[in-house]
Amino acid sequence: MSHFKPPYLGAAYYPEDWPPEQVDADMRLMLDAGLNVARVGEFAWSRMEPREGRYDFDWLHRVVRKLGEAGIATIMCTPTCTPPIWLAARYPEILAVDDQGRQAQHGARRHVCPNSPVYRGHCARIAERLGAEFGKDENVIGWQIDNEVYLWQGLGCYCDVCMTTFREVLRERYGDIEALNAAWGTHLWSQTYESLAHLPPPRSDTWHHPSLLTAWITFQGDSQVEYVKHQAQILHRLVSQPVGTDMMPVLGVNYHGMHRALDLVQYNHYDAMGTLWRQVFWMDMVRSVKDAPFWNTETATCWNGSTTANGYKEPGFCRANSWLPIALGGEANLYWLWRAHWSGQELMHGSVVSSCGRPLHIFDEVKEISAGFKAAGEFLTGTRPTPPGLAVHCSGLASAIFRFQPMTQGFDYVEGLIHRVHRPLMNAHLRADVIDPAKPLDAYRVVFSPFLPALDEGDLRRRLRAWIEAGGTWIVGPLSDNRTLDATKYTHAPFGCLEDWAGVRCVYQIPGDPREFSLRWSDGRASTGSIWYDGFEPGQAEVLATYTDGPFESLAAATENKLGDGRIVVLGTLPVADHLESLMLALTARVGIALAAEASENVLVVPRRGDAGEGAVVVELENESGTVTLGGAMTDLLTGTQHVGQVEVSPYQVMVLRA
Amino acid sequence: MSHFKPPYLGAAYYPEDWPPEQVDADMRLMLDAGLNVARVGEFAWSRMEPREGRYDFDWLHRVVRKLGEAGIATIMCTPTCTPPIWLAARYPEILAVDDQGRQAQHGARRHVCPNSPVYRGHCARIAERLGAEFGKDENVIGWQIDNEVYLWQGLGCYCDVCMTTFREVLRERYGDIEALNAAWGTHLWSQTYESLAHLPPPRSDTWHHPSLLTAWITFQGDSQVEYVKHQAQILHRLVSQPVGTDMMPVLGVNYHGMHRALDLVQYNHYDAMGTLWRQVFWMDMVRSVKDAPFWNTETATCWNGSTTANGYKEPGFCRANSWLPIALGGEANLYWLWRAHWSGQELMHGSVVSSCGRPLHIFDEVKEISAGFKAAGEFLTGTRPTPPGLAVHCSGLASAIFRFQPMTQGFDYVEGLIHRVHRPLMNAHLRADVIDPAKPLDAYRVVFSPFLPALDEGDLRRRLRAWIEAGGTWIVGPLSDNRTLDATKYTHAPFGCLEDWAGVRCVYQIPGDPREFSLRWSDGRASTGSIWYDGFEPGQAEVLATYTDGPFESLAAATENKLGDGRIVVLGTLPVADHLESLMLALTARVGIALAAEASENVLVVPRRGDAGEGAVVVELENESGTVTLGGAMTDLLTGTQHVGQVEVSPYQVMVLRA
Amino acid sequence: MSHFKPPYLGAAYYPEDWPPEQVDADMRLMLDAGLNVARVGEFAWSRMEPREGRYDFDWLHRVVRKLGEAGIATIMCTPTCTPPIWLAARYPEILAVDDQGRQAQHGARRHVCPNSPVYRGHCARIAERLGAEFGKDENVIGWQIDNEVYLWQGLGCYCDVCMTTFREVLRERYGDIEALNAAWGTHLWSQTYESLAHLPPPRSDTWHHPSLLTAWITFQGDSQVEYVKHQAQILHRLVSQPVGTDMMPVLGVNYHGMHRALDLVQYNHYDAMGTLWRQVFWMDMVRSVKDAPFWNTETATCWNGSTTANGYKEPGFCRANSWLPIALGGEANLYWLWRAHWSGQELMHGSVVSSCGRPLHIFDEVKEISAGFKAAGEFLTGTRPTPPGLAVHCSGLASAIFRFQPMTQGFDYVEGLIHRVHRPLMNAHLRADVIDPAKPLDAYRVVFSPFLPALDEGDLRRRLRAWIEAGGTWIVGPLSDNRTLDATKYTHAPFGCLEDWAGVRCVYQIPGDPREFSLRWSDGRASTGSIWYDGFEPGQAEVLATYTDGPFESLAAATENKLGDGRIVVLGTLPVADHLESLMLALTARVGIALAAEASENVLVVPRRGDAGEGAVVVELENESGTVTLGGAMTDLLTGTQHVGQVEVSPYQVMVLRA
Repeated sequence: MSHFKPPYLGAAYYPEDWPPEQVDADMRLMLDAGLNVARVGEFAWSRMEPREGRYDFDWLHRVVRKLGEAGIATIMCTPTCTPPIWLAARYPEILAVDDQGRQAQHGARRHVCPNSPVYRGHCARIAERLGAEFGKDENVIGWQIDNEVYLWQGLGCYCDVCMTTFREVLRERYGDIEALNAAWGTHLWSQTYESLAHLPPPRSDTWHHPSLLTAWITFQGDSQVEYVKHQAQILHRLVSQPVGTDMMPVLGVNYHGMHRALDLVQYNHYDAMGTLWRQVFWMDMVRSVKDAPFWNTETATCWNGSTTANGYKEPGFCRANSWLPIALGGEANLYWLWRAHWSGQELMHGSVVSSCGRPLHIFDEVKEISAGFKAAGEFLTGTRPTPPGLAVHCSGLASAIFRFQPMTQGFDYVEGLIHRVHRPLMNAHLRADVIDPAKPLDAYRVVFSPFLPALDEGDLRRRLRAWIEAGGTWIVGPLSDNRTLDATKYTHAPFGCLEDWAGVRCVYQIPGDPREFSLRWSDGRASTGSIWYDGFEPGQAEVLATYTDGPFESLAAATENKLGDGRIVVLGTLPVADHLESLMLALTARVGIALAAEASENVLVVPRRGDAGEGAVVVELENESGTVTLGGAMTDLLTGTQHVGQVEVSPYQVMVLRA
Repeated sequence: MSHFKPPYLGAAYYPEDWPPEQVDADMRLMLDAGLNVARVGEFAWSRMEPREGRYDFDWLHRVVRKLGEAGIATIMCTPTCTPPIWLAARYPEILAVDDQGRQAQHGARRHVCPNSPVYRGHCARIAERLGAEFGKDENVIGWQIDNEVYLWQGLGCYCDVCMTTFREVLRERYGDIEALNAAWGTHLWSQTYESLAHLPPPRSDTWHHPSLLTAWITFQGDSQVEYVKHQAQILHRLVSQPVGTDMMPVLGVNYHGMHRALDLVQYNHYDAMGTLWRQVFWMDMVRSVKDAPFWNTETATCWNGSTTANGYKEPGFCRANSWLPIALGGEANLYWLWRAHWSGQELMHGSVVSSCGRPLHIFDEVKEISAGFKAAGEFLTGTRPTPPGLAVHCSGLASAIFRFQPMTQGFDYVEGLIHRVHRPLMNAHLRADVIDPAKPLDAYRVVFSPFLPALDEGDLRRRLRAWIEAGGTWIVGPLSDNRTLDATKYTHAPFGCLEDWAGVRCVYQIPGDPREFSLRWSDGRASTGSIWYDGFEPGQAEVLATYTDGPFESLAAATENKLGDGRIVVLGTLPVADHLESLMLALTARVGIALAAEASENVLVVPRRGDAGEGAVVVELENESGTVTLGGAMTDLLTGTQHVGQVEVSPYQVMVLRA
Repeated sequence: MSHFKPPYLGAAYYPEDWPPEQVDADMRLMLDAGLNVARVGEFAWSRMEPREGRYDFDWLHRVVRKLGEAGIATIMCTPTCTPPIWLAARYPEILAVDDQGRQAQHGARRHVCPNSPVYRGHCARIAERLGAEFGKDENVIGWQIDNEVYLWQGLGCYCDVCMTTFREVLRERYGDIEALNAAWGTHLWSQTYESLAHLPPPRSDTWHHPSLLTAWITFQGDSQVEYVKHQAQILHRLVSQPVGTDMMPVLGVNYHGMHRALDLVQYNHYDAMGTLWRQVFWMDMVRSVKDAPFWNTETATCWNGSTTANGYKEPGFCRANSWLPIALGGEANLYWLWRAHWSGQELMHGSVVSSCGRPLHIFDEVKEISAGFKAAGEFLTGTRPTPPGLAVHCSGLASAIFRFQPMTQGFDYVEGLIHRVHRPLMNAHLRADVIDPAKPLDAYRVVFSPFLPALDEGDLRRRLRAWIEAGGTWIVGPLSDNRTLDATKYTHAPFGCLEDWAGVRCVYQIPGDPREFSLRWSDGRASTGSIWYDGFEPGQAEVLATYTDGPFESLAAATENKLGDGRIVVLGTLPVADHLESLMLALTARVGIALAAEASENVLVVPRRGDAGEGAVVVELENESGTVTLGGAMTDLLTGTQHVGQVEVSPYQVMVLRA
């Protein structure tokens, strides 16, 4: 349909904030930078509908048309993150209420109740009008709903509508209050409820039941999903372009469920130099949400900031950062923002050009990136990252459970996944999808489920069993399969099914606080565990590692067991990085999963294949020199250079290699 | 009366949370562990009275009877710490209100107003019914009222009933507002009140008068005392067993006054490995509250925690921790909890058996402890810790005064007592009672009153004078006798009577911030002080130490004076630990107080005597090797070994030595 | 008029808190200490007007008369900082409301709404009565209005009166809401207002627009100014003595504007030993507020504190601290407080005599100081600090802008001025006035404007241009001239006029986070910048320094340009201390500004001249030895010693040198 072609390089653009005539100057600079997409409309409700029911889209049509004529596509956003003053003032019930009963004030953003029928009605109206205006516009290549949906103040909205809806959700789930009492174990502390009407909105100043807190936060996250779906349904009736919403590298909202109603995944991220590598985890997740290339809708060219500019980055960072989503399965990278704001809460944020229209110091780097996108475009759109065969589970519910039950002192679920699980895989150059528990497992030969307390999420337990019996290798633990969907423990055993499936018996459980314990691998290597310790009697299972101190000395720390045609590897504790790496290498190699590359740890290599051939995208992540060793001769499409064998990779260098 | 015999080893048990049939399995495991007492009923109001006025005690009778038949005694708790939902929902005025006006939410604990007549009425009802049901049950050996009474959010309840009661308490104390104004010195800042009705509930966001704050916090603590007494009176009408309430190692409630209405002292504590030694201070206090062996109603077997498991402890810790209360004058040690919870706010807390009924790694250690209790039982019940002759004052009022008037930067009253006063005594193996100012002094030859601002508490000043004149040695200061009962300064002198009694005159006072000053003892040792500095002209007193720098160079830092047949030693500053130790050794030796033992500093030795002979309990506190030197041959009742001379004590070893 | 003569040494005195007869003892001690002034009345409203409309000044007349007869002058304070209970209880609308809607409680201070007409009415009444009583009293030498006016809880009062007044102020400033929207750039985030009535009181829990926040905080500061002016007008009608209000070393209130309505500057400060030198900055500012010697109305003799005594100071500190205001242009130094309180919120604060009337250890030092004041009095009153010819801008508006827009991570405006700008000047012994942007520039040859975002404040831009063209040397930047008076950016260029005036073009701007960049001065010295980096194309300007790394390598970091008969030196980054020092030395030397002295960095030398001759006051600030080198022979009026050449200065020594 569209005459615009990925990969897209672009930026967020706020023409509502500038004189109409300025679009020409901006457009010329965009073309100079080589951009081919702009994202507009976000937050601009007060310009689209300056008075209730009085619309003005002319200014926006002019911008979209001008950009389109210049070859710059538009991503159109619904502006529902920021209601105009007439809406906030006339219908104050739409404003979010925090857990202290404070109604949000105008002037913020995301300060609305996701469940308010009044707000939903107004959102429907503006989405319909916007959809009608731009739904067939061939200069528009996609839609973004709202912006960075998330829970108000991290806890959600405590208004009356939300409390009523919460109780309805619980009624649907449990039927009656007796079932809820039984499921949550409310006899303790005489918490037993007589009626759903007695359930309190759980304030942060009270020491509440973790099952209540988990249910509340899940409900609030799901409310955001419903909020997005509501607009998606409207847009899908009216627009011919794909629809998404820009998600963030946080786990408070069920992105997997949300994207069932969306067409593409949009993703925003901002990292400093020292943490750029963490985006590999997040993009491995973002890529796995849907079977379509994602759009990196926001990232910084240089420093981010609000009224403070934070974090200059060294030359090349913008290059590596801009290519990273492309390497990992995206087809668009947009900067936030094109022209720096001249006022307001974010006027010090980095941009492509300054408030007064002068190119920032990264402008030439952006030009180089856009040139690279063009040079490698055909190969990139004709290939996709090679399916890795390996998946790591990452769960929003697990995040909620651990938020209210860290289980062991200082444990942070997401940090655990990124630093202690995913980073060792990166170091080993084992590519992985990071998947939601609800995702089908057919594409994988090995699945790793660390810190996954509730195995019944997304019917995973049943599907896992079938998948293992059909030949899958499941690595599980520690801290997995130890909570029901109600965030309570099992009472028949420490786990739901783990002992049964793995043929082991857990004798002792000990938290990894204040110290860690040592163990020995079956090949004799001495090691230590981390975070948590289950000590197993191995029964029929093969012992992979044995504890060598602590109360569980001589019990098994890791075991392996056959189940049907597959295998279960149980980790009683999380091995230190090097030894997790070697374990994962051994288990994946056994089922024929190949390494992405032989390369230094600072170099990301993502193999690709497709109609346009085979190859890989290489990105240096740490501003250091590194190497990658190529199996055969390959050509770097960015430079035309042919490489073979061990190749030097310079700081923040990117290569698009075609075999 | 009872066929159960101390020493008791047991655990808190929550049968309300488990299927009725599970009690058999639990009981078998308890017997296996060697436990002979269980504490039940705490928090179980919603099971005892599921609807207002409809009671159900059958389930509890069954548990108590079964346990009793197996030889396991029961401690019965009133469940008033956690009102059922019908109570909270129908009578919301019973819920505590914090200083920001927020009424507490259901789902917490201790979230009730201690002064609410409505809540008192309901408490009376459930206590009466419970008393009637179990007051003559021979399987019940004692009662616990409520649980860990303490001030809501650390500041108490700000509801209207509390404000009215507070004003009534002030009216009783001061008569009229003019007297209050005069006592508090409210002319400053135009604070002068016209009426008690104008007194504000002192919020934490306001910079309030310390006399108001001290009065408020004292009132709130006393409200907790009244709350406990109310139930005690009811139980005393109905039950034949002793009644107590489990207190905590904090000073916000007047434990001394509270226990005038109670029969025994119950005590809960949780310490990490590095701070176990601090419990010697607290148990020296707990032992001194009443003239009866206390019950250690709660401690952890291993890690404590809420939704996080915190602090694995090394082998032997459970032993030393379990014996410590026995050594220091208790006759019971109960773990919190028997079977780990499977849900709720505390499901990760350590226990004896896990949620699924598996013994924890400390199970064998518990068996060893119970065997030891049995082996040494006769000797232990036939003896009591030898009265030490030495007491250290510890005051709840002092704690309140210093809370709102730290006097010198960073001073913490309790930490000062534990680390700087009591620890040197421990190091010297000088046993001491830690006593409330209201306690009679007859049993002591030496009394030390450090940081005791209000000497009129409990009529102490008058009684002290008589006791000194009759031969007592009083060591006092620094920061003592410098505040009235209204938390104001004296205006005639820096102290109430200290200069007069001690025959000295304070020339300068200087806080120990940001640096300390040096001094020299009369025997020539150079030293430094700490915390606070009074410089004295010695007058007729003997100079024990003289400052050697600072503005008070050459003034006396410590003096001694005769008064009647006794002596007053005034400390203008707190000597460093070694020198406080040698001073205390000299002053106690002079009046014939013997050391508990010659032993290394990590080894606690508590001499005992009584009908069953003489001996001592020895506990190693630091997980290190140590020694104790015995005067004569003694037998360790735990091993049967006979010891004489210098004996090695292994890490966390316990010995019960009989001469 | 007055028979009392400066320099004054005195203390705050609270006779309302003590028995009437005690004034005699206090007076004798004051005379012994050599004090000749006492400050009374502050906070004593409840004693002056114990019931509404019933006044009692007899007690105060007695005190003033007695002191006067003894030769001790009185500074009289209006007591409006602390309303009596009858006022707070009967007219609760006078109490300040914080941003969470909490109305302040009685018992605090400064807890009133500055805009409340009701409170203003009561203040008028008490000020009129007090003025009538003491306005012609020859024992009273001056007036202090209220005490340390500042914003309630740092954010001001959120009551309805304040909100209404705020909107009126905005209406006066912007006319209509469209103009406000245009000025603030409210199109972003759909913030656009339809009416001033929609403007929210900006709560701290909301991410508000920095223009709104800046306007709010400026309004609240101006409300304090109006509050003071209101009383000043009343007093000016009734009293013959000069009127002031005691200000603090903070920037939340427009002191320059406030003092247009006042006769003299009163100033309170409290610093620890390590930060005493910071007072040179503040007193360089205080001296510059008005053309009259300021009164140092409060400082500590030793430790300050509230219910905690904080910070003993070494011998001599009191001397240096007491002489510092005299050295820097003051004519009075008063301690807070004379006799320590015996109760209340500040009873541990240091004083001259203790609560029980005993001299503190600093008493002899005070006597030495008063003797020195007398010995040097004639010279001091007959001379003034030599006008320095150099000024540094310091702006309350800049402080507000940077509070809500730090611009670069961690930037603190006041700390930047004190540590990075003023301290290098001190080290170089370059004396400077620290001036408000509204102050006339005629007295200066060199003006330095670092971090001065809004150049239009006080019509500075226009006046600066004229002053430069007439021959002034203006040093400007970094972070100057980059914000409008609405706290928004310029859109035509990064600066308002800087590029135009200086003949340069800013190519890149980069924050100094997370690292600094290097540069080279035109004389070859390698250096680094700090805080912020503008890289310039020098155009017609002379390049003073060039960047040597970063994206702006080879661009100019500092330039100089002629403008009319004057010069503009633009700093793109703030040089490190040594190099800022050498730059300032070069630029001031060129226009004939002399150094104060050749001396070590720990020694402050303030030259003076006047009818009584020429000389200097020398104060050692760091409790270390130092030196000063005298051009010719001078006599130290404190010792009578004659000095010439290099003179040793001992720790905390003070010299009053007359040529």
